Amino acid sequence: MLTAPSATARHAAEQRLAALAKPTGALGRLEDLAAWLAACQGVCPPRPPSAVRAVVLAGDHGVTAGESRDGVSAYPREVTAAMVRAFVAGVAGASVLARQHDVALRVLDLGVDADLSDLGTAVGAYKVRRSSGSIDREDALTGAETDAAIAAGTAIAEAEIAAGADLLVVGDMGIGNTTPAAALVAASLGADAEQVVGRGTGVDDVRLAHKTEVVAQALRRTGRRAADPRQRLAALGSADLAAGAGFLVAAARAGVPVLLDGIVPVAELCVAEDLEPGVVAWCAAGHRSTEPAQRLALDKLGLEPLLDLGLRLGEGSGALTALPLVRSAALLLDGMALLSDLAP
Amino acid sequence: MLTAPSATARHAAEQRLAALAKPTGALGRLEDLAAWLAACQGVCPPRPPSAVRAVVLAGDHGVTAGESRDGVSAYPREVTAAMVRAFVAGVAGASVLARQHDVALRVLDLGVDADLSDLGTAVGAYKVRRSSGSIDREDALTGAETDAAIAAGTAIAEAEIAAGADLLVVGDMGIGNTTPAAALVAASLGADAEQVVGRGTGVDDVRLAHKTEVVAQALRRTGRRAADPRQRLAALGSADLAAGAGFLVAAARAGVPVLLDGIVPVAELCVAEDLEPGVVAWCAAGHRSTEPAQRLALDKLGLEPLLDLGLRLGEGSGALTALPLVRSAALLLDGMALLSDLAP
Repeated sequence: MLTAPSATARHAAEQRLAALAKPTGALGRLEDLAAWLAACQGVCPPRPPSAVRAVVLAGDHGVTAGESRDGVSAYPREVTAAMVRAFVAGVAGASVLARQHDVALRVLDLGVDADLSDLGTAVGAYKVRRSSGSIDREDALTGAETDAAIAAGTAIAEAEIAAGADLLVVGDMGIGNTTPAAALVAASLGADAEQVVGRGTGVDDVRLAHKTEVVAQALRRTGRRAADPRQRLAALGSADLAAGAGFLVAAARAGVPVLLDGIVPVAELCVAEDLEPGVVAWCAAGHRSTEPAQRLALDKLGLEPLLDLGLRLGEGSGALTALPLVRSAALLLDGMALLSDLAP
Repeated sequence: MLTAPSATARHAAEQRLAALAKPTGALGRLEDLAAWLAACQGVCPPRPPSAVRAVVLAGDHGVTAGESRDGVSAYPREVTAAMVRAFVAGVAGASVLARQHDVALRVLDLGVDADLSDLGTAVGAYKVRRSSGSIDREDALTGAETDAAIAAGTAIAEAEIAAGADLLVVGDMGIGNTTPAAALVAASLGADAEQVVGRGTGVDDVRLAHKTEVVAQALRRTGRRAADPRQRLAALGSADLAAGAGFLVAAARAGVPVLLDGIVPVAELCVAEDLEPGVVAWCAAGHRSTEPAQRLALDKLGLEPLLDLGLRLGEGSGALTALPLVRSAALLLDGMALLSDLAP
């Protein structure tokens, strides 16, 4: 069991929020956010996160190849590798948002189905394999690959923390990624395929039905092995998703708060919470996904997203878009007058 | 009729959004926002607003005095003057948010029921009167005061535009202000008091019933005079609200976009739209108010807020909190790769 964020600092924040020169509760959701940040930092008022670091974990997924080719996504898998290059060039959507908000952003190839070795070790040092098994027919990863991916995510988080991160974001890039994410959520929560599968980047009704059947078959194939979080990742996940779970556990172990993105990091959190209970207390939810699996998972985890802008880009974009709110919460708690300061 | 934002620039933005390296529509609400900003600026891609200027219009309201004293608000009217001083000291909630987002913020006394002359003309140059008539029993303002307040709002906006504003925010500060705001929305839309009155800063059920009766009486007393926007402001408004309406008309006339706050600026917009049709096209809605009048008004005006964080602070805080999203929309439209740029 992980150390929990500080209840003392949370209480101090709640007391200070009640004493600020404003009607009770008038800062709405920013009040919960300020108390959460104070608890994570163990201090009130908390510092606005100034060394925010984001990683985008990239990988391909077996469900987009072979018999299922193009069956679960509106886009071909070649887009994944092209987008990794867009990140390196700083022209992905999340690259733009990271610059806007002074966030250090790295893209890492965990399982892209392409040779990206020309991009060097900064991108490729943690590559586990190319793509993953098609989860409707076979495991996504071997046990050894699963362990390697979790360890990669741990090492990636530890490097960001060593670089001084005071808030972390983990995003995902990979055509087909909402399919294993939905499967992991369903397996984690005991839900059915019909409850978790959504349209991802925008599939039509035929592909939606196929995607649902892929997830249903994957869940049937996996059976009771899904109860174990490592076996769940091996059977239903991918290198990038397993790394994401490891990343979240490592952040929570180090006591560094995480602002969550859409469906993929929330699926990773479902598994991370089973790997090491208590991770969720170090997380806030940035953005409501259009994928039904995210709502199911967040309800179970007790989190509510700050934003609901209809983003469905992935890449950590929802978290990055919500970041100014975390900073606002800290700044308001520190910078507003107390009611007792106001001249009568 | 005002000049409309550029349909050509909006179309160019929509074309560019469709060509960006992302799934169709994947930027959600930020796509509408980018197209709106392009239309307002008449250029695609639009520049992220860098010279944002906000004004907080302060005033007291007759409904908080006399027979109705303390009947419509959880706070005494003395708080209004104290909060003006908090703004001058830079310790109000909106002051903190303005600093975070590099926004120039001014507070102006339009109708505070106190002598604030020690704060100088920067705060007091546009003061119309102290407080306003209690709208359940008498007009809020005389015709001459209404004209003076509208002219004040116009001059305030023109000064901000002359200072280089490329996006404007108008906030309001004044104990009791949700009562005239609700009355103005009801009169503008032909709604009943029960449909528009909310709990403001947090009144209990008894005060909520009283506040509803105050608005109902005000609407009965005003009758058909409400059809004329100036008479509506005189009968049901206040100096700060009339100035806000003038401010919005002046911004739209100058073609400077406005990011709206909660209930008060939206009530002002209802009147501004009747003073000069077409103002609404220059406005985006920043934050969903907890006041029912705002939802009614925004539905009528065809606007949907970007944020719904439960803020009920006023002061322009909802707009300031949403400001990074406007900048994100512009930056993404400009900085993301085109799909045609991606190497296959």
